[in-house]
Amino acid sequence: MTPAAPQRPILLNAFDMMVPVHQSPGLWRHPESRADEFDTLEYWTSLASTLDDAGFSSLFLADVLGVYDVYGAGPAGAYRGGVQYPLLDPLSAVSAMAAVTNHLGFGVTASVSYEHPFLLARRLSSLDHLTKGRLAWNIVTSYQDSAARNMGLAQQIPHDARYDRADEYMDVMYSLFESSFEEGAVLADRTNATFLDATKVHPINHSGEFFTVPGAALTHPGPQRTPFLFQAGASPRGQQFALDHAEAIFVTGSSPRLVRHWVDQIRNGLEARGRDRYAIKIFAMVTIVVADTDDEAQQRLDSYAQYVDTESALTLFGGWTGVDLAGTDPDSPIEYVTTEANRSALESMTKLAGAKTWTVRDLAEFVAIGGRGPVLIGSASTVADELVRWQTEADLDGFNVSAAVRPADLQRVAHYLTPELKRRGLLLQRPDTPTTLRETMTGAKAHLAADHQGARFRRS
Amino acid sequence: MTPAAPQRPILLNAFDMMVPVHQSPGLWRHPESRADEFDTLEYWTSLASTLDDAGFSSLFLADVLGVYDVYGAGPAGAYRGGVQYPLLDPLSAVSAMAAVTNHLGFGVTASVSYEHPFLLARRLSSLDHLTKGRLAWNIVTSYQDSAARNMGLAQQIPHDARYDRADEYMDVMYSLFESSFEEGAVLADRTNATFLDATKVHPINHSGEFFTVPGAALTHPGPQRTPFLFQAGASPRGQQFALDHAEAIFVTGSSPRLVRHWVDQIRNGLEARGRDRYAIKIFAMVTIVVADTDDEAQQRLDSYAQYVDTESALTLFGGWTGVDLAGTDPDSPIEYVTTEANRSALESMTKLAGAKTWTVRDLAEFVAIGGRGPVLIGSASTVADELVRWQTEADLDGFNVSAAVRPADLQRVAHYLTPELKRRGLLLQRPDTPTTLRETMTGAKAHLAADHQGARFRRS
Repeated sequence: MTPAAPQRPILLNAFDMMVPVHQSPGLWRHPESRADEFDTLEYWTSLASTLDDAGFSSLFLADVLGVYDVYGAGPAGAYRGGVQYPLLDPLSAVSAMAAVTNHLGFGVTASVSYEHPFLLARRLSSLDHLTKGRLAWNIVTSYQDSAARNMGLAQQIPHDARYDRADEYMDVMYSLFESSFEEGAVLADRTNATFLDATKVHPINHSGEFFTVPGAALTHPGPQRTPFLFQAGASPRGQQFALDHAEAIFVTGSSPRLVRHWVDQIRNGLEARGRDRYAIKIFAMVTIVVADTDDEAQQRLDSYAQYVDTESALTLFGGWTGVDLAGTDPDSPIEYVTTEANRSALESMTKLAGAKTWTVRDLAEFVAIGGRGPVLIGSASTVADELVRWQTEADLDGFNVSAAVRPADLQRVAHYLTPELKRRGLLLQRPDTPTTLRETMTGAKAHLAADHQGARFRRS
Repeated sequence: MTPAAPQRPILLNAFDMMVPVHQSPGLWRHPESRADEFDTLEYWTSLASTLDDAGFSSLFLADVLGVYDVYGAGPAGAYRGGVQYPLLDPLSAVSAMAAVTNHLGFGVTASVSYEHPFLLARRLSSLDHLTKGRLAWNIVTSYQDSAARNMGLAQQIPHDARYDRADEYMDVMYSLFESSFEEGAVLADRTNATFLDATKVHPINHSGEFFTVPGAALTHPGPQRTPFLFQAGASPRGQQFALDHAEAIFVTGSSPRLVRHWVDQIRNGLEARGRDRYAIKIFAMVTIVVADTDDEAQQRLDSYAQYVDTESALTLFGGWTGVDLAGTDPDSPIEYVTTEANRSALESMTKLAGAKTWTVRDLAEFVAIGGRGPVLIGSASTVADELVRWQTEADLDGFNVSAAVRPADLQRVAHYLTPELKRRGLLLQRPDTPTTLRETMTGAKAHLAADHQGARFRRS
């Protein structure tokens, strides 16, 4: 293991989803929860404004394109429990949130499996323009058979082939973002009646195994050109994809030791590619329950237990792993059923469990608050200490902060924790003048770093 | 011809596009133009707010998915002139505009040719939720070969087959919007831990010639269920499609007499289907130049001539008709070259021209301000008189108002004309309490009318 890195500024990314239940099944029933207002603009503009004022770097919106229908071999559990369903388009509220914020970035999930790159590139560039360069794209390949079926496929594209196709997809996207419009192509020159310099707009002439896109992008690139790139692939092939493309990676693990394992893999992978170990920002998922004192925070967490929804927790687990635990004895140990499709998810769960033999009940309780990640509990000072410990021990850049009671637990982070982090000088200080998300996140330029493979698509 | 209908309230729909040049090529160079800010949020929130205050019913955003590359056999003319290019995603600013308005509806163009219905349904439902039921969908089948090529097709789907496929597409959309979630499916019942009543969420089991979508919609339907439906098909097959699906239809013609021809076809078509002649709202496109006096308005229009861009006008014409007039003598008469692909567009141009033999120059000048539609010029009183004449002679419900200088000419309509229309009691009065767009437009209920074919998909 490499030595612990020196303290770096902590980046905070809020982790949410336009659904009734994101990572903490059942907690939508808490009296303070407003999760059932997930389909209103007010929920999102209010949350964005709070996060912006508090000093968060970004709000990341997850997405799936199918219903969790493994548990009980049908969608009824997901329907009843509102488990990541129904779910709105994560791009839909971005412009409204941008209008009420100055610094906050918006990480939207969009699948390379079901959206055509020519149209997705325009959708992302449009939001990068409207947010003045505050857009991040969380690249996913989608993992649910239910999604594939609704897109007219008999089943999903096999796991590794999805990533091969995704690599070509990224080539198309880089071509559209980086090479289609040269710098200076947009003149808007009234005197000479020239909106674009036609010599600086280029067809990308992409003709590959999966995609044929001859033309130029439908729109000029936004302030970042390629939006800031998020990824969360955990499988070996997914991790290779992330190393090739991501500028920020999300990891999940119940202890700093487990997370460190993945962080080292990523940082070593970067070095093996001749890049800086810290060229990719790494965020670990945490759920935070913070209050005036440690006791109050613990009491608050204890009070959550009555809202936990075990069936919903197993519905989430089923969707993530492909393993249906419906009808099992809650006290029976889990026997992992490994198939090609669910191998990577199961491996990460096995690592989370460590040497311990878990029962179905243990598992449900573990997943029920904060999904697969840890819950940090305490006063602002205690949680700040915990974040520093996690950051140091796991060599992290930041945290993907999820709320158990939505949005209350994120509002409480803004109220209690971020002032404490600022007092200690731990929170990443954003530039005074609003800037692009890439600049905020990396301190470097608005465009892809020169050693990022997307930069190869640039015209010299 | 049926007799002129009695005066009905006038509906105003602003007609714009997220581009430098929409319908008036070259006018982006006018000193008052802010069209080159089309990629900023402020342009759109400011315009939406103005329209909302002025009493417009909706803002309609056009879209195309390719570049106008017929003129000069390449895209250079469209690039130089900013002719409907570059162009942002018309859905991208809707939530921001919704946040600063109370009544205004948002008509977004989305193609049934290149977006999968399962994903488009979610995108539209998401915006219908966030706008509280103020979304309209302008259904297009797309008409450019350049778009088809960028989506990986050798050429577009043939015209009539596009509409057959579009009909099935609509079946999928109605199923997702109308039948997937029964009324009362969303309970959000905290006491009984039931977010959705699982017995009221249904897979749509669509299996057709073009699409297979077994599952339920990804999200619950918005306040209108099916968004209010716009259409503008002008060909015989397109008009049949519009009669089957549209709740509002856009028509374009240079005189009330020409427009009346199409309006009668639509209203007769409705009667032939056993529906009310006025079941579909019909809007005619107009460009309005209004000022304190008739003279000032005329002077203003005259001053526009210096900004007209002839090449850009012929670029638009080429895209609409498939006819390349590059290199022709400006004073030579136009010889219409009719092919299957451009027949309908040419027919409508021929009708516009009437008996007159047009030169290329005439054509360019005609298209250069206001595209294929008329320009109404004068004081508020004069323009109001003109609108009443148009409405009466052409049996219209409203107007699709386009700006030559953007957004100045729409701001001037808000400043001069809508107060005059209100004084005369001509402008449709919106309900005091904000409501859905369908209720605003039709005075009826939030959901599709019982005799609309989408209503057949409802569960009893």
